[in-house]
Amino acid sequence: MAQKKLKMGMVGGGEGAFIGNVHRMAANLDGQIELVCGAFSSDPVKSKRSGEALFLEPSRCYGSFLEMFEKEQALPASDRMDFVSIVTPNHLHFAVAKAAFEHGFHVICDKPATFSLQEAKQLKDLIEKSQKLYGLTHTYTGYPLVKQAKHIITTGQIGDVVKVVVQYSQGWLAAREDTSGKQAAWRLDPAQAGISCCMGDIGVHAANLMEYISGQRIIELCADLNSTVMGRQLDDDGTVLVRLSNGANGVLTSSQISIGDENGLAISIYGSEASLSWRQEEPNTLWMKFNHQGAKMIRTGVGEFCDEALAAIRTPAGHPEGYLEAFANLYTRFAMQIRAYPSQLQDRETIPGIEDAIRGMAFIENAVSASISDIKWHKFII
Amino acid sequence: MAQKKLKMGMVGGGEGAFIGNVHRMAANLDGQIELVCGAFSSDPVKSKRSGEALFLEPSRCYGSFLEMFEKEQALPASDRMDFVSIVTPNHLHFAVAKAAFEHGFHVICDKPATFSLQEAKQLKDLIEKSQKLYGLTHTYTGYPLVKQAKHIITTGQIGDVVKVVVQYSQGWLAAREDTSGKQAAWRLDPAQAGISCCMGDIGVHAANLMEYISGQRIIELCADLNSTVMGRQLDDDGTVLVRLSNGANGVLTSSQISIGDENGLAISIYGSEASLSWRQEEPNTLWMKFNHQGAKMIRTGVGEFCDEALAAIRTPAGHPEGYLEAFANLYTRFAMQIRAYPSQLQDRETIPGIEDAIRGMAFIENAVSASISDIKWHKFII
Amino acid sequence: MAQKKLKMGMVGGGEGAFIGNVHRMAANLDGQIELVCGAFSSDPVKSKRSGEALFLEPSRCYGSFLEMFEKEQALPASDRMDFVSIVTPNHLHFAVAKAAFEHGFHVICDKPATFSLQEAKQLKDLIEKSQKLYGLTHTYTGYPLVKQAKHIITTGQIGDVVKVVVQYSQGWLAAREDTSGKQAAWRLDPAQAGISCCMGDIGVHAANLMEYISGQRIIELCADLNSTVMGRQLDDDGTVLVRLSNGANGVLTSSQISIGDENGLAISIYGSEASLSWRQEEPNTLWMKFNHQGAKMIRTGVGEFCDEALAAIRTPAGHPEGYLEAFANLYTRFAMQIRAYPSQLQDRETIPGIEDAIRGMAFIENAVSASISDIKWHKFII
Amino acid sequence: MAQKKLKMGMVGGGEGAFIGNVHRMAANLDGQIELVCGAFSSDPVKSKRSGEALFLEPSRCYGSFLEMFEKEQALPASDRMDFVSIVTPNHLHFAVAKAAFEHGFHVICDKPATFSLQEAKQLKDLIEKSQKLYGLTHTYTGYPLVKQAKHIITTGQIGDVVKVVVQYSQGWLAAREDTSGKQAAWRLDPAQAGISCCMGDIGVHAANLMEYISGQRIIELCADLNSTVMGRQLDDDGTVLVRLSNGANGVLTSSQISIGDENGLAISIYGSEASLSWRQEEPNTLWMKFNHQGAKMIRTGVGEFCDEALAAIRTPAGHPEGYLEAFANLYTRFAMQIRAYPSQLQDRETIPGIEDAIRGMAFIENAVSASISDIKWHKFII
Repeated sequence: MAQKKLKMGMVGGGEGAFIGNVHRMAANLDGQIELVCGAFSSDPVKSKRSGEALFLEPSRCYGSFLEMFEKEQALPASDRMDFVSIVTPNHLHFAVAKAAFEHGFHVICDKPATFSLQEAKQLKDLIEKSQKLYGLTHTYTGYPLVKQAKHIITTGQIGDVVKVVVQYSQGWLAAREDTSGKQAAWRLDPAQAGISCCMGDIGVHAANLMEYISGQRIIELCADLNSTVMGRQLDDDGTVLVRLSNGANGVLTSSQISIGDENGLAISIYGSEASLSWRQEEPNTLWMKFNHQGAKMIRTGVGEFCDEALAAIRTPAGHPEGYLEAFANLYTRFAMQIRAYPSQLQDRETIPGIEDAIRGMAFIENAVSASISDIKWHKFII
Repeated sequence: MAQKKLKMGMVGGGEGAFIGNVHRMAANLDGQIELVCGAFSSDPVKSKRSGEALFLEPSRCYGSFLEMFEKEQALPASDRMDFVSIVTPNHLHFAVAKAAFEHGFHVICDKPATFSLQEAKQLKDLIEKSQKLYGLTHTYTGYPLVKQAKHIITTGQIGDVVKVVVQYSQGWLAAREDTSGKQAAWRLDPAQAGISCCMGDIGVHAANLMEYISGQRIIELCADLNSTVMGRQLDDDGTVLVRLSNGANGVLTSSQISIGDENGLAISIYGSEASLSWRQEEPNTLWMKFNHQGAKMIRTGVGEFCDEALAAIRTPAGHPEGYLEAFANLYTRFAMQIRAYPSQLQDRETIPGIEDAIRGMAFIENAVSASISDIKWHKFII
Repeated sequence: MAQKKLKMGMVGGGEGAFIGNVHRMAANLDGQIELVCGAFSSDPVKSKRSGEALFLEPSRCYGSFLEMFEKEQALPASDRMDFVSIVTPNHLHFAVAKAAFEHGFHVICDKPATFSLQEAKQLKDLIEKSQKLYGLTHTYTGYPLVKQAKHIITTGQIGDVVKVVVQYSQGWLAAREDTSGKQAAWRLDPAQAGISCCMGDIGVHAANLMEYISGQRIIELCADLNSTVMGRQLDDDGTVLVRLSNGANGVLTSSQISIGDENGLAISIYGSEASLSWRQEEPNTLWMKFNHQGAKMIRTGVGEFCDEALAAIRTPAGHPEGYLEAFANLYTRFAMQIRAYPSQLQDRETIPGIEDAIRGMAFIENAVSASISDIKWHKFII
Repeated sequence: MAQKKLKMGMVGGGEGAFIGNVHRMAANLDGQIELVCGAFSSDPVKSKRSGEALFLEPSRCYGSFLEMFEKEQALPASDRMDFVSIVTPNHLHFAVAKAAFEHGFHVICDKPATFSLQEAKQLKDLIEKSQKLYGLTHTYTGYPLVKQAKHIITTGQIGDVVKVVVQYSQGWLAAREDTSGKQAAWRLDPAQAGISCCMGDIGVHAANLMEYISGQRIIELCADLNSTVMGRQLDDDGTVLVRLSNGANGVLTSSQISIGDENGLAISIYGSEASLSWRQEEPNTLWMKFNHQGAKMIRTGVGEFCDEALAAIRTPAGHPEGYLEAFANLYTRFAMQIRAYPSQLQDRETIPGIEDAIRGMAFIENAVSASISDIKWHKFII
């Protein structure tokens, strides 16, 4: 029987939202997925207007996620949405995902996965019960050269990992007066963002990338989170020193007040034989360096790549692929898992899932509690 | 009445073709266009197989472009395709476009527009007669910072244009033995590629970019095209010196045997007050340089931009946008023109059209004839 | 009366020593200084051989620094050396400087200034007593764009300093087996290097640069020094989190096991209005970045510079000046101070002196003691 | 017998001259050479004042080069200068060199070697008659990685040279009104500069570098020299297409009106197996690129180097060496040849000499005459 595009519903991402549109473009790119319905806003009129601008049938632009799940569940299988994409503010992620699983839908969700570690653990239980698929969009793991870096390390080409330095530096919260609009407002509001702004928004990406590429886990940490602008309740900057599971040390610096920095995520992994460096803002270049020979510049599409990296490349060398392509790689892999379901469950190597969700939430909570302690080192507790 | 996605048909781009998939991803990205039919191959079985892999209804996977145009024309307006995307080898561009116009369809076409300048001129007549829209995918004009560069020059910020240096350098045809597969075969075959390989494939992009950004036209040229590998009938490398309409001079270097170069398109426009430089492989950075003050690095999304550039940016600063996004900008603009049709005809400023097609074909023919002449300078003749 | 070149003696820096030759080239470059004598080695035969290779008169190639100071002191003023350059291993710096002052000679010394903080304080007393000049070669403060960066901050152009990130990363001590020769041996030997390898050798440069450019002082710190290679007694890697005198926070990462890194000193100073970034390996470029406008690339020699930076530039823009030129700037400034002596004493703004020496030694001792503590934050104690 | 520093005299390079000071710093750096006398200006008072500022004995600050050669010749061998450095405007180079040879002195001279090709040929005869040493400061051949690039090509590591692209781009003559001072005045004056400004000043460096690194000679050329600013008698910009002795083609672009460019000399040599790229403004990096594997970044001091490159490196990796170090390499090599004289005559591989002088002057004359011709290609005539 002929295959069809997978049908996606979306919660959140109405007019004016940034990340919702990113998810939609990522889902569109490879022509594997079509958006068929959405609860784009808690305001039904706005939701409908958002959906129509996306060429949806008005009848499938819902006023609430519950309504969407119920009505879609009632549709014949050939029309019904296959999975939901959750792009609401953080505090709603859990409730939407829970309802999705309860109505039998797979879930792909923006990060951080939940509002708290506790919710993330509950989510895990729900996933195990429902046996549905769950994908978490740690976008940066979708870049081909991130996958290649992981492969180089896994295959022992840099020797033992000795040190990891990761930096995620932005400047958009540097302004003293709040000039950054709606985004800044909810990111800095504990009721919507949770216990952390900077670590919760971007530090968690850095921690995920550190663990993903190095193949190690954070087991101890020392944290110094800062709120550099008077009156802020949450951190806008911070550094976390870590010990990794193999004894390597790491430094994670994250900031949203580093004025002039755009989306400066960069990682260096130093091994006993060689090192790797990668910068998200120039994602098609990966450096492999040595002490006693010239460095090797690995460029997307030039030379040999591991299967995972190859599958993530769409164009020949020199045709820059960027953030949306990396994001699309997650969606396309998630789509492949849905097509293979239930013979194959979610595979953390190809798209982050609930384990990453839990470690991410744990990272945020551990960093915050270590930061307010006078003791230097703390075990990483889940 | 609710708007719908625009319906696209495709000619060429079946299994194994590179550029067809690029066009499809570009058309998909913004969710404005859906592929509904195609004549992907002259082999009906292959065409159907290609279409099914793209989730098309088997009944709309046609065995020839003529069949497609006829059958689609017969469909009710609400189902019928709105426009065709032509991604065949060069020698078929004209015939497909001609048939499309004759059956009442808009056309977007890969470059070079036609097999010869003469065909391009005929195409212009057909367009004028049919009053249909025609878009030519000179992809590099779709980059936000290319549009911003054009704007900076148009608004006089670099003074008078004095010199333009453009380089388009690739290495994939460097191999002495033919190891580059099908692509290399047809690119180097005069029967399929026309009178030029390197100038026809990439030099024409460089010439288009030079004219697009500078706002000047090539009026004289001196050409030196080379075939560096024994036995090749067409050029694989060359330099064209030019005089622009305002008296500025220019240097266009293009090569497909520059081993190690990926897709190295780079342009510098020197004015009487400042200069601009841009490299396609790092497309989110535009340099503006001065003699007596520090250079300004303009980054996609940082600071103020002209409307055209703004409309071409999808993500915040630091989230790299690349080749597919630039390509998608052309498709999305073409879609907007179709929606506005017939109240607004094709606008060359937003997506290249038949004028660019004609100048491109003229550039190739002028470069080839100037190259075989012993005289240094030649008028650019259309 | 006609001026003459200043006469320099040297202690240390015999055959095979790296840093001695660097000091000599730095002293040579501007033609202000001539080497006239030396105690290049504690072995008189080696010292003489080293001196002869440097075209010195055999009679002025001494077997010990004491002999040199005594015999030079006895020469007529017009022949006698004017100052001594100390380039021995760390543990001898103090004794040589002490003897130099006691014999009436000015001193320029490689860093770290002494073996311990206590010695540095004694040195300060000796300087005050002798009223001689003392220069400390924190080379990186000699770069023109470092001076310009300091100027930009001093004149308020980035607003308040909010955060400083400095990294000094090398890879030469990464090897598990000791393959790095004599350098590695003494650097890792507590008897010759003192209580720290990495922080004492390069971390102290990073701390000096952080304070020099930002105009702030470290007042609190949290340290994590590591010895990543089995069997090492001293640190080969570490991170120090700091609080600066104005409340800004800072991160100092220093490593000698970051394989593939050469001499990777880089600093970013984030202010409330703009930020500055500079990398020693590309020293002729200084970045000034903003949130809402394009970044400014300041290049050595392009545009306006402060007097201190201007005085440190020797060639027109685009003629790269490097490490030896920066080093020469210190020597040439020290020579100017000697010529002006005694009407003008040592000026810390132009060449680091005893205050920097003391703060540097204090940084090393504070970092080591904070690192072995379980408490997170420690006051910076001198 | 103990060796002594070599004694240098200088002609030109008085107060306010840029290049004279560069030569002196280059001569100083390695401590092999001391300046002992000079005819710094044709005005005896100015010459004396210049010399005193350089700590010379007043008696050896001469009012004319002839006076200098005569008086120095009369000194005892142990005091007498060993060689002369010529840093006057172009039109005097020949006369000074001629007189130097006639008085028995070796010569090192700034480029271009002479005012005309004819003079250069006469100079060759004079050298052969006098059997003295002659060095020409094509500075860029002094960079370690330029030497390494030459070695990589000589040893066949890039296969056959197929194409060479060299660009030398500056912006300092962009100003419409003459605001560039004395330098601009004589560079643009045919009476002092000769028949070319841009090609004579910098194009000749580019041509020299092209031949030096590639190991090939220019045998045919097509030239397009421009005078972009109204009223100029000499070229300020131009492109020269070339055929090299092995059949490879080349493109040489040179400009002094490329506003915002500093001293942008860059070269790419494409071979049948790999390519090399080097930029003078980032001289410690050399790229070796391939089609089917990652590029190799060769950095000064990292890995293995040929003897010539090794001898040209003074500091460990990551300590940037620049223009003055490259220049000093020429002086130090010339000093070594003088010490070895007469057992070893001038060696063109280590420092350019009269052959390069002749080819350089021929390049200028051939480029100018080809430029004014209507014929495209011209034999390179000496």
